[in-house]
Amino acid sequence: MSSDQDPIDDFFAIVPAGGAGTRLWPLSRAQRPKFLLDLFCTGRSLLQDTVSRVAPLVGPEGTYVVTGAEHVAAVTAQLESPGDRVLAEPSPRDSMAAIGLAVAVIHHRHGRSIVGSFAADHKIAGAEQFQRAMRQAVAAARADYLVTIGIAASRPSTAFGYIHSGAPAALPGAPEACHVVGFTEKPDARTAQRYLGTGEYRWNAGMFVVASDVLLRHLGEQRPAMLAGLQEIASAWDTPRRAEAVARIWPTLDRVAIDHALAEPVAAAGGVVVIPGHFGWDDVGDFNSLAALLPSVDGAGNKVLGDDADVLHLEVAGSVIAPASGRLITVLGLDDVVVVDTPDALLVTTRARAQQVKDVVGMLKERGREAQT
Amino acid sequence: MSSDQDPIDDFFAIVPAGGAGTRLWPLSRAQRPKFLLDLFCTGRSLLQDTVSRVAPLVGPEGTYVVTGAEHVAAVTAQLESPGDRVLAEPSPRDSMAAIGLAVAVIHHRHGRSIVGSFAADHKIAGAEQFQRAMRQAVAAARADYLVTIGIAASRPSTAFGYIHSGAPAALPGAPEACHVVGFTEKPDARTAQRYLGTGEYRWNAGMFVVASDVLLRHLGEQRPAMLAGLQEIASAWDTPRRAEAVARIWPTLDRVAIDHALAEPVAAAGGVVVIPGHFGWDDVGDFNSLAALLPSVDGAGNKVLGDDADVLHLEVAGSVIAPASGRLITVLGLDDVVVVDTPDALLVTTRARAQQVKDVVGMLKERGREAQT
Repeated sequence: MSSDQDPIDDFFAIVPAGGAGTRLWPLSRAQRPKFLLDLFCTGRSLLQDTVSRVAPLVGPEGTYVVTGAEHVAAVTAQLESPGDRVLAEPSPRDSMAAIGLAVAVIHHRHGRSIVGSFAADHKIAGAEQFQRAMRQAVAAARADYLVTIGIAASRPSTAFGYIHSGAPAALPGAPEACHVVGFTEKPDARTAQRYLGTGEYRWNAGMFVVASDVLLRHLGEQRPAMLAGLQEIASAWDTPRRAEAVARIWPTLDRVAIDHALAEPVAAAGGVVVIPGHFGWDDVGDFNSLAALLPSVDGAGNKVLGDDADVLHLEVAGSVIAPASGRLITVLGLDDVVVVDTPDALLVTTRARAQQVKDVVGMLKERGREAQT
Repeated sequence: MSSDQDPIDDFFAIVPAGGAGTRLWPLSRAQRPKFLLDLFCTGRSLLQDTVSRVAPLVGPEGTYVVTGAEHVAAVTAQLESPGDRVLAEPSPRDSMAAIGLAVAVIHHRHGRSIVGSFAADHKIAGAEQFQRAMRQAVAAARADYLVTIGIAASRPSTAFGYIHSGAPAALPGAPEACHVVGFTEKPDARTAQRYLGTGEYRWNAGMFVVASDVLLRHLGEQRPAMLAGLQEIASAWDTPRRAEAVARIWPTLDRVAIDHALAEPVAAAGGVVVIPGHFGWDDVGDFNSLAALLPSVDGAGNKVLGDDADVLHLEVAGSVIAPASGRLITVLGLDDVVVVDTPDALLVTTRARAQQVKDVVGMLKERGREAQT
């Protein structure tokens, strides 16, 4: 008999570790992306936090990380027991290919399993509530549902996607599961405000829990060529044919997000449920959301990401200052600014412009300054 | 016969090179003060510009620089023919002591001479107009006046002192000389506006031209102990007794500005005239006034002090960016900001706060961060 504290035998975590996090430039770089960073100065990267969080559910050898070939070494170095579970994507082909690869490999190695996908670069508060939600999600996945996690919206955010939940699904072991009516991409401010009023919309935490055979069956219905390709790669994965199969097939796979490829059509057919996540969640997408998660260093709402001794601020409020070069940073008479100092690049902007930081990275590429991106 | 193009035989320039320029921190440092800096990226420091500007008037060996003992080596290295004319102050004792020392040494070495005092860290545009004003000033000084230079006020500046000019003095060789009614320290905005309306007030460029014996006589009347001390130091200067005399006497000299010690009382007695300076002048006191003197790099009034290739700005106007560390500086969505990047310290502030930068330096000293001041 397993208890509510034990790992779940046939449950595997998939951690897609992709995306440079360009809105967190210059902390986050192409060669040192967000998920590898210790953004909260805890001594652990977001990836390490993610893997630790799921370990009680999947056990020490139950986590698969899918990452770009150029990050395999760094990811492997950060993991305690990487085993043969760090899967390299030869090139980025969006989340359906990345997650589909991991599901196909797990299914090939272990047969029907429950798989959960957890982004490598989100911040979650409340380990117990997280695990309780996941155990419900696994129960709902055993009933062959594609299971999403919805976070209670505390403000009309335009930076997150939303899950529109409907009637309770009444599933054994998943008392809070509700059917999903549909998904919405990042809405405009007015729509977000309306969502908040109805109480029917939750933030899409970007997690999925599903049985491996159910996911593969849905994929076969929606994108049969993609399923065939991923299954051929998976059957070659643990053989000398891996490199050839990956090189031949991977570039032919559709570039599509799992939300569009599966979650939306399956929800339309009644196959998706949502479990409410009663934990703190943020995708830490930019310096403004990062700031909201950091404690203030003073009564003026200033946040320091690094060693406070390297920062001197005078008549400054609500600002985010990241001393990451060891140099002294002084700020005088500015509110709500973002100052990020690294050994080779400096960013000065405002919290309101946090989403636009990716444009700076785009401009750097145009100007041939890839070394700093 | 000397022409209007030749150096003036008995004319000496005194260049007081003191003051750290803390409002230009972190470019300007205690150990690398403003006058040693190439603030306008011309390949020459403000000190070098000052010395070059007066050379046609005083000849190649007619300039005396008075500076702190710790800057003697750097000053000497920047001069083409320093000779024995770099005078070291063992400790800062304000401008009367510094200029008085140079006047006393010049008088001791050369007898009655005309001396002109020119700050080492001002920016002047229009060499010909400068020299024309100086030749008038020398003529007025030969008539035993203490001669000041007044710049036509183009705006109601609260950052400069003002000279209140009265009736024409009708002096030979100095047709524009007017008697000085009095001096005003930096006025408030309302007073400055009123001054601008009258047309009687000019900005005090902080330059003096005077006969050495006249200055020493005035000093003897106002501060006899100071005169006696400076004369004793001057008579020992070119002897083995210099060190002993300086060490014994210098610390006893009054700490007072030459404006208070001499210019104000002598003006009250009718002994001061002003020559209008028809040249561009600025004391480059802070990043805001520095910015006003720099060309814009774009149509949005942005100024870059350094290599433009190291700066990327997006939706930024009226800002001053100084890349002085070789790193990439990016600014996004902020107007009228000041970003000064040096290898060990960074300043982010606004042009409106430019005068307050000295407070940052004060705070650094309080916190024991002298290494960065």
